[in-house]
Amino acid sequence: MYFVGVDIGGTGIQAGIVNENGEILFRKECKTNSLDGFENVMNDIEYLVRGLLKENNLDMRDIKSIGFGVPGFINKQGMATAVNLGWEDVNFIESLKNRFNEVDVYAENDATVAALAEAKSGSMKGKNCAVMYTLGTGVGGGIIINGKAFSGAHGMGSELGHVIIGENYFDCNCGNNGCLETFCSATAIIKYAQRLIKEGRASIILDMVNGNLEDINAKIVFDAYRENDEVAVETINRFKLYLSKAIANIVNTLDPDIISLGGGVSRASDIILSGLKELVREQLVFKNNEFADIVCANLGADAGIIGAAFLS
Amino acid sequence: MYFVGVDIGGTGIQAGIVNENGEILFRKECKTNSLDGFENVMNDIEYLVRGLLKENNLDMRDIKSIGFGVPGFINKQGMATAVNLGWEDVNFIESLKNRFNEVDVYAENDATVAALAEAKSGSMKGKNCAVMYTLGTGVGGGIIINGKAFSGAHGMGSELGHVIIGENYFDCNCGNNGCLETFCSATAIIKYAQRLIKEGRASIILDMVNGNLEDINAKIVFDAYRENDEVAVETINRFKLYLSKAIANIVNTLDPDIISLGGGVSRASDIILSGLKELVREQLVFKNNEFADIVCANLGADAGIIGAAFLS
Repeated sequence: MYFVGVDIGGTGIQAGIVNENGEILFRKECKTNSLDGFENVMNDIEYLVRGLLKENNLDMRDIKSIGFGVPGFINKQGMATAVNLGWEDVNFIESLKNRFNEVDVYAENDATVAALAEAKSGSMKGKNCAVMYTLGTGVGGGIIINGKAFSGAHGMGSELGHVIIGENYFDCNCGNNGCLETFCSATAIIKYAQRLIKEGRASIILDMVNGNLEDINAKIVFDAYRENDEVAVETINRFKLYLSKAIANIVNTLDPDIISLGGGVSRASDIILSGLKELVREQLVFKNNEFADIVCANLGADAGIIGAAFLS
Repeated sequence: MYFVGVDIGGTGIQAGIVNENGEILFRKECKTNSLDGFENVMNDIEYLVRGLLKENNLDMRDIKSIGFGVPGFINKQGMATAVNLGWEDVNFIESLKNRFNEVDVYAENDATVAALAEAKSGSMKGKNCAVMYTLGTGVGGGIIINGKAFSGAHGMGSELGHVIIGENYFDCNCGNNGCLETFCSATAIIKYAQRLIKEGRASIILDMVNGNLEDINAKIVFDAYRENDEVAVETINRFKLYLSKAIANIVNTLDPDIISLGGGVSRASDIILSGLKELVREQLVFKNNEFADIVCANLGADAGIIGAAFLS
């Protein structure tokens, strides 16, 4: 028996046939033509999934379920809101059920889906209670409880990028101040390094971008950190301090078995993980007790297909 | 079939026989002679429970399980740490099993126990995913997931008084800065009112305590709030703002069905609940979606016995 996982992104849609071990056996993709409207994107998704099966001589009877990862929010009534797709309260689950009435369909936020993938066959494999932070342009979160994706009573849970952990010098896109996303995203790293340089601090980063502050990206800041650049060190240490506060909060709340860090920023895993667990420990109530391992995600972009396939 | 619940406090130990509806049928109590050491307190507990049964013509065959609420932390190995009792990593569960080998025994932190009571037969009755804050001298937390007390993979979860939600002008007893407990406890209310008055702000509170700032308690500040005293209004509004941040964080994390506020501070429930849900909503990512009801606990001190009885 196989599972189908579909990862709906802002620019492309990836579908895959996944076996029980979490291996992607076959893949197919298409563009996300979000400007054509919701129904046309749904048509493309149906065409993509049916095409994937046909190409590989499979039919719906070989498939246990189809799962979907969405870059947005799906409430318990199955309505989806995804800004990047132009979806606002669209009837996503009903549309899926009408199109794929032969099998069970499931859908979750893409960060939750990535967490499920890592818990089923990646960096958090076999762990029952697991939390993943996706550290990219923004910050996403996924929570696994009793081995299943957890999104709360109304589908709003695991929005870990928007937990408030301090006070910041700029507001979050969501309208609040102090969201994790404003301290621990690639965007936050770039902004803070720019800010220090604009204040007149000397940094090799300025040479690395030929004086164009707008060209700073997170990788450049991590590269400068490796050269002991003061601005980079201050920027990354601040990032790690606030990440440690967020992780301490999740330990004080959910006390998971394991915590995994994914997303583009986590590519500098050696820098991020170094000393991080000790920073977290200092901020716990029970400092001497065993607590969650902190690791980096290892499935990369495949997590979107694999996690969606494992939704149930 | 009955359940026994035992609420171990710093000054007294309350035991009760509870039926399946969460009603306390019989009670018995004793002092907590913590200075006599762990084994003597355990002797007293055994004597108390066996006496309670005997007085009411019951024996262990009538009892499904005995549950214990502890003012501290119990790890997954059953070791308990409770500062107020002088317990540090004592072998609590093993001692209970040796003393009550005829029935199943369970134990949890007292704030978690209170949350379970409210979810089983109090203000959160029938809700599967529920969170309770105990707002007293300190702040405790309890999390219910799938109808059961949730304390995480190592027993450290639901320490909601120590999640970091901002920056405060004094550090928490746990050594960190910005813990919820430093914003939203009775202690926090008293300290902040004292601070404003020491800064020279006029307030009727000063008359209410005959000029003795050390005599301020939370009730006095709430009473002054009802008189529109500026210092009291500023103090309570600050308390509610930070409480709303903590609640928004728990909605963005767990998105429970319901949130209940207990502890001494919650006696001013009319003041605390007024406008609180709107304050929380402003700080959510999905501002238009339905989210948890916020209520005040209604079992009072009985929650300790009832929740302990329902542990499983």
